[in-house]
Amino acid sequence: MHKGRLEAFSDGVLAIIITIMVLELRPPQHAAHLADLQPLFPVFLAYLLSFVYVGIYWSNHHHMLLVTQHITGVVLWANLHLLFWLSLVPFVTAWMGENSFARVPAALYGFDLLMCAIAYTMLQTTLLRVPGGNPVLARAVGRDAKGKISVVFYVTAIVASYWNPAISYAIYLLVALVWLVPDRRIERQIGEHRD
Amino acid sequence: MHKGRLEAFSDGVLAIIITIMVLELRPPQHAAHLADLQPLFPVFLAYLLSFVYVGIYWSNHHHMLLVTQHITGVVLWANLHLLFWLSLVPFVTAWMGENSFARVPAALYGFDLLMCAIAYTMLQTTLLRVPGGNPVLARAVGRDAKGKISVVFYVTAIVASYWNPAISYAIYLLVALVWLVPDRRIERQIGEHRD
Amino acid sequence: MHKGRLEAFSDGVLAIIITIMVLELRPPQHAAHLADLQPLFPVFLAYLLSFVYVGIYWSNHHHMLLVTQHITGVVLWANLHLLFWLSLVPFVTAWMGENSFARVPAALYGFDLLMCAIAYTMLQTTLLRVPGGNPVLARAVGRDAKGKISVVFYVTAIVASYWNPAISYAIYLLVALVWLVPDRRIERQIGEHRD
Amino acid sequence: MHKGRLEAFSDGVLAIIITIMVLELRPPQHAAHLADLQPLFPVFLAYLLSFVYVGIYWSNHHHMLLVTQHITGVVLWANLHLLFWLSLVPFVTAWMGENSFARVPAALYGFDLLMCAIAYTMLQTTLLRVPGGNPVLARAVGRDAKGKISVVFYVTAIVASYWNPAISYAIYLLVALVWLVPDRRIERQIGEHRD
Repeated sequence: MHKGRLEAFSDGVLAIIITIMVLELRPPQHAAHLADLQPLFPVFLAYLLSFVYVGIYWSNHHHMLLVTQHITGVVLWANLHLLFWLSLVPFVTAWMGENSFARVPAALYGFDLLMCAIAYTMLQTTLLRVPGGNPVLARAVGRDAKGKISVVFYVTAIVASYWNPAISYAIYLLVALVWLVPDRRIERQIGEHRD
Repeated sequence: MHKGRLEAFSDGVLAIIITIMVLELRPPQHAAHLADLQPLFPVFLAYLLSFVYVGIYWSNHHHMLLVTQHITGVVLWANLHLLFWLSLVPFVTAWMGENSFARVPAALYGFDLLMCAIAYTMLQTTLLRVPGGNPVLARAVGRDAKGKISVVFYVTAIVASYWNPAISYAIYLLVALVWLVPDRRIERQIGEHRD
Repeated sequence: MHKGRLEAFSDGVLAIIITIMVLELRPPQHAAHLADLQPLFPVFLAYLLSFVYVGIYWSNHHHMLLVTQHITGVVLWANLHLLFWLSLVPFVTAWMGENSFARVPAALYGFDLLMCAIAYTMLQTTLLRVPGGNPVLARAVGRDAKGKISVVFYVTAIVASYWNPAISYAIYLLVALVWLVPDRRIERQIGEHRD
Repeated sequence: MHKGRLEAFSDGVLAIIITIMVLELRPPQHAAHLADLQPLFPVFLAYLLSFVYVGIYWSNHHHMLLVTQHITGVVLWANLHLLFWLSLVPFVTAWMGENSFARVPAALYGFDLLMCAIAYTMLQTTLLRVPGGNPVLARAVGRDAKGKISVVFYVTAIVASYWNPAISYAIYLLVALVWLVPDRRIERQIGEHRD
């Protein structure tokens, strides 16, 4: 089965997710001073963080499918499962931003990121099990240290939110930075594969 | 006529439909406890059900066009007709979720699913009648037992909502599960075709 | 210059236009009877009419670019000009639907359709003037009777809205039906071209 | 790495940005006279200006990637960085339109355009540095006079808004007109390249 439409549909959903979040930034009416924007600042920060996260997922999804040749019906659903948790990002982001980074929203944000990470790993596993295999992806993923560490970090952040949500946010930022570094594993494997 | 743009446009519309439904999940403002999310629970359940349904339609649409080579102007309109009923899914979902799964919204939800099913069957019939035919699709569809049973189920659910909407919701869930099983008919036919 | 991205971007914009109109259909909260939907009926009719119009534009745009090989920078802007007027369709539709098909909204709706028709003709002219020409499109368009008649009808509808908006709506419906018939001109030309 | 998905994702995000801005044009309810639309006029003008700007970015992005063969992980992020600032256009547009072109919104609008211009230049630089180089793009960009002048103009507009926002708007219009002229540099280079 061709992967073209899987990519196109995912691109569409991710493009919408990343863009509709900006609708939460509702400009104050009849209030045209910089100070009027101040209440929007936490909403903006939440938007920025989630933009980076969705960007990371798009970039990783792009790399992963780049080295994939064959997909199956199960892959379609593993992908939809990932898109489902990602589609909740605008919701958890809005709740977090509008409540100035309170405790429970911090935990729920982490829970959604955790589910996204699990769904991404499931999609990865499904792609590795497609008949015929995917040796380039297999070598690139390796023992998937980054993925496993992220899960540990998210769980820590959810628990930490009970005491201090600032710790949770610091962790979300840290994990984003870890992933922001382009996943050279796949690019390296592609290079070696071509040599 | 090439099918590329038909797929691209459908992917776009389906991606938007599946994503804008999440906008109904409006986070409570200045309310940052888990209990504050409780009124959103039926809205979330309705979103989940509709996400699965739109996902099923996307997956089946994907399979059906995979084995299609030629399209005509009539196919474009049969496809737009399907997209029209699917575009109403966010509306019926929102009405259902915001009224905690009441009787009439349950019936209207079923009515929209029924129209989607009929429109899908019409698109399928149109694709089978394209000059030159579509033998792989014809064999895969067969007598279309799944499609016919779904229509019977939807009608039953609409009628049942008069007595107890819980029966309707159980039926919608059941039909979703029946379709969630990937439509191996087409994948099998593709396999045999290649042998 | 390759036409792929022009088609992809147009598909994206048209898919969004056709889908966000449904957001105007806001379900009544805590009101779960069929009678509660009655005030939404004009909004629904307006949505249906505009869905058909945007569908017609998508279908015609699809046919026109099908027979186009080369595009230029001017084509990009003629296309953006068309998308601009089409992007106002959700606005004029909402105003019309929410005011139960009053006089001025009826005229403004016609004005936007008129601008869309003019912009479409301009795009068509631009495509015909691309260096190297477009003989298949030229023959398919011919004297463009359908396009010219539509403009006359729109102007009539705008003027007629002053006395009775019902006449305007009848005309919009009539023009839609005229265009709903698939534009076999292009399909026929493609057929002849291949023979 | 193939550029197809980078283009598709950018097309999706830009299509959504350009279209959701129209949602700010909320039609007045139970108000069906032309005079009722008068308060929407500045919102409409702001929409028109931003539509042209996003159109310019899409057209330039299209030209730039047309002559690009290879992309890397860094390009993905330079592109996401550009999309981030462009995604804020609907917000700054809405604030500007709803406050009838006041002073601070005029400056913020210019600031976002400035950041978009900087992000675009960064993406351009990244594409020029891709291993293997991009001689056609290099020659087309040249010393990038247009890009540098735009930055100077945006800064001037931001400063001028302190005294008179009308000057700022005149400058935004002027820069848009400068860019509206299709960027023949790239088309010319493609032509020469083919000869």
